[in-house]
Amino acid sequence: MSKRLKICINTGGGDAPGLNAVIEAVTMAAHNRQWDVYGIKAGYNGLFNTDEIVHLTPKVVDGIAIQGGTILGSTNKGNPFQMPVCNVAGECEERDMSERVMENFRRLRFDALVSVGGDGSMDIAQKFFELGMPVVGVPKTIDNDLGGTESTFGFDTAVGIATEAIDRLHSTAKSHDRVMVVEVMGRDAGFIALNSGISGNADVILLPEIPFDIEKVCAKIMANELSGRKYSIVVVAEGAMPQGGEVVAKGEGEMGRQHVLLGGVAEYVAKKIAERTGKDTRSLVLGHLQRGGSPTTFDRLLALRFGAAAVRAIENGKFGHMVSLQSADIVTVPIAEALSVEKRVDIKGDIVMTARDMDICFGD
Amino acid sequence: MSKRLKICINTGGGDAPGLNAVIEAVTMAAHNRQWDVYGIKAGYNGLFNTDEIVHLTPKVVDGIAIQGGTILGSTNKGNPFQMPVCNVAGECEERDMSERVMENFRRLRFDALVSVGGDGSMDIAQKFFELGMPVVGVPKTIDNDLGGTESTFGFDTAVGIATEAIDRLHSTAKSHDRVMVVEVMGRDAGFIALNSGISGNADVILLPEIPFDIEKVCAKIMANELSGRKYSIVVVAEGAMPQGGEVVAKGEGEMGRQHVLLGGVAEYVAKKIAERTGKDTRSLVLGHLQRGGSPTTFDRLLALRFGAAAVRAIENGKFGHMVSLQSADIVTVPIAEALSVEKRVDIKGDIVMTARDMDICFGD
Amino acid sequence: MSKRLKICINTGGGDAPGLNAVIEAVTMAAHNRQWDVYGIKAGYNGLFNTDEIVHLTPKVVDGIAIQGGTILGSTNKGNPFQMPVCNVAGECEERDMSERVMENFRRLRFDALVSVGGDGSMDIAQKFFELGMPVVGVPKTIDNDLGGTESTFGFDTAVGIATEAIDRLHSTAKSHDRVMVVEVMGRDAGFIALNSGISGNADVILLPEIPFDIEKVCAKIMANELSGRKYSIVVVAEGAMPQGGEVVAKGEGEMGRQHVLLGGVAEYVAKKIAERTGKDTRSLVLGHLQRGGSPTTFDRLLALRFGAAAVRAIENGKFGHMVSLQSADIVTVPIAEALSVEKRVDIKGDIVMTARDMDICFGD
Amino acid sequence: MSKRLKICINTGGGDAPGLNAVIEAVTMAAHNRQWDVYGIKAGYNGLFNTDEIVHLTPKVVDGIAIQGGTILGSTNKGNPFQMPVCNVAGECEERDMSERVMENFRRLRFDALVSVGGDGSMDIAQKFFELGMPVVGVPKTIDNDLGGTESTFGFDTAVGIATEAIDRLHSTAKSHDRVMVVEVMGRDAGFIALNSGISGNADVILLPEIPFDIEKVCAKIMANELSGRKYSIVVVAEGAMPQGGEVVAKGEGEMGRQHVLLGGVAEYVAKKIAERTGKDTRSLVLGHLQRGGSPTTFDRLLALRFGAAAVRAIENGKFGHMVSLQSADIVTVPIAEALSVEKRVDIKGDIVMTARDMDICFGD
Repeated sequence: MSKRLKICINTGGGDAPGLNAVIEAVTMAAHNRQWDVYGIKAGYNGLFNTDEIVHLTPKVVDGIAIQGGTILGSTNKGNPFQMPVCNVAGECEERDMSERVMENFRRLRFDALVSVGGDGSMDIAQKFFELGMPVVGVPKTIDNDLGGTESTFGFDTAVGIATEAIDRLHSTAKSHDRVMVVEVMGRDAGFIALNSGISGNADVILLPEIPFDIEKVCAKIMANELSGRKYSIVVVAEGAMPQGGEVVAKGEGEMGRQHVLLGGVAEYVAKKIAERTGKDTRSLVLGHLQRGGSPTTFDRLLALRFGAAAVRAIENGKFGHMVSLQSADIVTVPIAEALSVEKRVDIKGDIVMTARDMDICFGD
Repeated sequence: MSKRLKICINTGGGDAPGLNAVIEAVTMAAHNRQWDVYGIKAGYNGLFNTDEIVHLTPKVVDGIAIQGGTILGSTNKGNPFQMPVCNVAGECEERDMSERVMENFRRLRFDALVSVGGDGSMDIAQKFFELGMPVVGVPKTIDNDLGGTESTFGFDTAVGIATEAIDRLHSTAKSHDRVMVVEVMGRDAGFIALNSGISGNADVILLPEIPFDIEKVCAKIMANELSGRKYSIVVVAEGAMPQGGEVVAKGEGEMGRQHVLLGGVAEYVAKKIAERTGKDTRSLVLGHLQRGGSPTTFDRLLALRFGAAAVRAIENGKFGHMVSLQSADIVTVPIAEALSVEKRVDIKGDIVMTARDMDICFGD
Repeated sequence: MSKRLKICINTGGGDAPGLNAVIEAVTMAAHNRQWDVYGIKAGYNGLFNTDEIVHLTPKVVDGIAIQGGTILGSTNKGNPFQMPVCNVAGECEERDMSERVMENFRRLRFDALVSVGGDGSMDIAQKFFELGMPVVGVPKTIDNDLGGTESTFGFDTAVGIATEAIDRLHSTAKSHDRVMVVEVMGRDAGFIALNSGISGNADVILLPEIPFDIEKVCAKIMANELSGRKYSIVVVAEGAMPQGGEVVAKGEGEMGRQHVLLGGVAEYVAKKIAERTGKDTRSLVLGHLQRGGSPTTFDRLLALRFGAAAVRAIENGKFGHMVSLQSADIVTVPIAEALSVEKRVDIKGDIVMTARDMDICFGD
Repeated sequence: MSKRLKICINTGGGDAPGLNAVIEAVTMAAHNRQWDVYGIKAGYNGLFNTDEIVHLTPKVVDGIAIQGGTILGSTNKGNPFQMPVCNVAGECEERDMSERVMENFRRLRFDALVSVGGDGSMDIAQKFFELGMPVVGVPKTIDNDLGGTESTFGFDTAVGIATEAIDRLHSTAKSHDRVMVVEVMGRDAGFIALNSGISGNADVILLPEIPFDIEKVCAKIMANELSGRKYSIVVVAEGAMPQGGEVVAKGEGEMGRQHVLLGGVAEYVAKKIAERTGKDTRSLVLGHLQRGGSPTTFDRLLALRFGAAAVRAIENGKFGHMVSLQSADIVTVPIAEALSVEKRVDIKGDIVMTARDMDICFGD
């Protein structure tokens, strides 16, 4: 007879549409096995301060898959291996508090942790696994830059929102003979820019993986002009960089850490285009719109499958593994192996080839 | 037996979802009377350069009501009464070119012009009417700030897009305990901010009509914090102003006229909130997203009704009038009368009262 | 010093997007006056069985405006003036149970009831008002057929859903040279069919207000064919009727009351078109899709305004009145007066004229 | 130096969102190689009647990827190997007209055909390939039941529309304590029902792959009732069947082939549930809504990638192959091989396991 387990789940890093679907599926799949499930609030905080732990039941999670965000509350609460600890004088230092997390985990008699997060969270999960915690990972990254899985939830939603925005900009750009520069997420990997740019019929797509020459961007815009298309849409990933390493300042200035200035690369590109082509050029930063709101069906389903698979992975003792989408199936891969790969846009791959065939300019 | 008329239509000012619906309805209603209809491209340009005139037939306009933008091309092409005219040395001056427009209008034997536009376009239409041109106006303003009509097309779409964006921001703001400041359109009138802010369950709404005290805004955010709601949504109209007239710089800087810097009031407000409350605060400017894309059903229907009503107004000789929505009916009002009213948010009206009852802070 | 009131709210009849927004605004506006608010569940049931009453607080209603349905539970629970009462033998009769409602209302010391509903609910509200209950009405009808107000919440959402469905059908109808007949709500009034049909670029619109001649419908379809448009979209209100009173059976047959057969008029019309024109013809019934889901921004705002206005009406002692939209303002009108008007499509009005100008056929 | 090819493209079978994206990408990729591209209208009709061939240029296909349907017109025009040919007396017989297609193909000096379609179209493509025509296939099936590829365009859109409909039904079902039965596409394969049912939080999902026992369906509904959830959502694929082979009549009756009766399995299931549980039960058939309208971003991108890959396949002489999605890459597989596999829901697979963990009943 199988044991009734007691498991817990936390969510870390930036929020992504689908987090609640993972929580719902983990809860339901555990409940179906007559296990107990607890939600650790605010990343690992709930394992420091054990009043931040909630019992998850079918009633609590009923229908939450459709909601954005995470019912486990704020996600970006730091790394237990490097916790900032401050004394009364306000002097802070980072300290390794992982032992306290391990103790509470044992004291509360948890049999396993499902850790949902991006590469930062998976790295922490791997460390706890090495300390002896039975962890199963669920990969989460809007940018799609995590190795070991073909896709993660949140990405399809972000691409969809970006594409819808680009669709909207066509009519206004066309009515005013304008160049519109729209900045989408993607600090290190340009998947969102690439996919939304192609789907949204952009003229130019700028990616972190392909440093751009602004002259080639402007040449494309002027070629449009000559062919009678008097407007252009430029999609730029936030991490796109001009060739030759010219630094695009994104400084925080006098506001300090609390407030990251918007603008950045889109504004830089728009300014350069306006200067060189004389075209009326506007920029727009989609920012947090891409993270928010209800997940697409694709993301809901993928997140639910990930959640249920995480519970099966616990059942099968696949600790130190994370669930993964491969060839339309859900499998498990060692977290350490997934972390060893940085997924980036394949600049020789068929998606980039498709874009080039569509006459889309990458500025190279 | 009634005469077969020959009429024309132009669209002026910023684009608004619904312009194509007006064009479709004018064309169909005219065709139904066996009239001829022509589209003047690029504002009044088509009456300078008469090669920019297109014949509008049912086939040309079939199904365009659903599309954003305007098939008559770029809208913002200046005022014939103050046209910039430049000599070979590049020295420009504004000149009154209205007579040339009048001549071409007569030479082409047009019986009437339907002029679709905002207060600028209506002002020009009124002047041409005074010069003897048989003009009927169709009011268009996304901001809803035009007198003489209860509403115009484009406004419902803009409010809808803004509300959807605000809806999305809730989940990400909540997941990160953040303050999100979102800037929507409305330089002189705050209707978009007010309606989307209430519908989107905002905590703070800042309007041009109610100068704000940033301390009161911060007090509301801290009150939320104390009550356990650790995030806040602030909706700010682009024309909102702090009390005491502190100027919010929106300068264009070194880029010149071609590129209006984004940021403006949202960034200012976000910065002040971050400084005073210590909360992680982000800003976002919706910008052109609000103008683009397919009109809502409400806007499609209103624009189609306006278009058909403009043709009836021609039939009835109601020149110098514009069509108008009043009490769910379409009527006509003298353009001059409509222009004499600047429509602003009624700060004692039931919508503002509703917002106050919803505990929304206006910073006053 | 004003008294702290204790008020209650119920929702009756079919659900409409916006009910929760009314509940939210009533709760917030009452809370803002330091009043107590209670929700009566399941129509008037909560005043029979007083365990079906819930305390409404800002926390309970936070953010519910965006949700479809009603948190007060099932709405269609019969008329307290004609309650079916059954004995042990299973024999039932209708009995007037209104006195019990009055008693409970008084015993619980409620100062006012906000009753949200359609003409049936307003009729009951009026009767309770005449028995001495201080009632304020909030009109609700998806079909827009309620007198005394220019519009009600739920209607814009229903029209939007119907239009989106019609938009979708164009591409598939066109790809297959098909006639698509789509049935929308509207038993007595054709507002949804009219507005969605025009916005959705339908070829034919059939309304309860204009009995149709199927030959004229088919003539329109064949005229399309000849002009090269090989597909047609027919929008039909569920209450549309052929001329001469041929009865379209919508019988419930052997399934009894539990299950209303789908099909009805759309299927009838599709069959006749297929027979007479030989065209491949399909029918589709939108049904409950039109009621469900999140209200549009327009409906959310209108419902919130209605809710806040209902609380002001209580404050001002406007009992026996309902709130109403007139000329973009919220006013109050006597319920009895509103009930005396049956709102129907004005077949001489500008919307029908617009449709005729768009070459839309009404089958007359 | 590579030869300038002259290629053509046709689309066959039911329409699917994404057909126009394939056409756009094929045209652009061919244009990029300085090839000529022609569109064969109405399936293979354009190769019978060569006036139904259109020249495809970048201008013709600009921005069509976003549109539903196909610019190549009606798709369902029969099989050239079995063409109905009628004499003057109206007597028809099926005749093999493939040689005429081959002749026209050669006479027009086409170097290759891109054939976009489902299993029927791929079967015809294979036959023409065997007759010596250089064909490349692009798989298309909304139902996702085509072998040889992990997914096809149109499926994600159909699932999305179905899920959105199910989302909407929750609120109205809940407000009225009702059972809602919604029928989605899927005659032989239940992928749409399975994916939309899980994403849409259904209580019951009935698939062609799992014959259902109505008693188990009713038991689930009554179990909901006991647990306090007084409404249920049942999603049923059009090809779902009760155990024991009771035939669900979907007869066409007196209307002949022109009109397929709505109702079918959803109505059958609703009737049985109403009879056995006494619950108020309604049924709804989504029908053509699932095929129509703009493709999702996922489908647009997949269709564009398929189109560009088809041109590369021609370049590489991969005739008799079709393009295919495998492990996030586009590859080619022999059409004959793809046709040998009937893709069905894996009833032991992780998606069904996920559903069972979510407590969803399959009626088995």
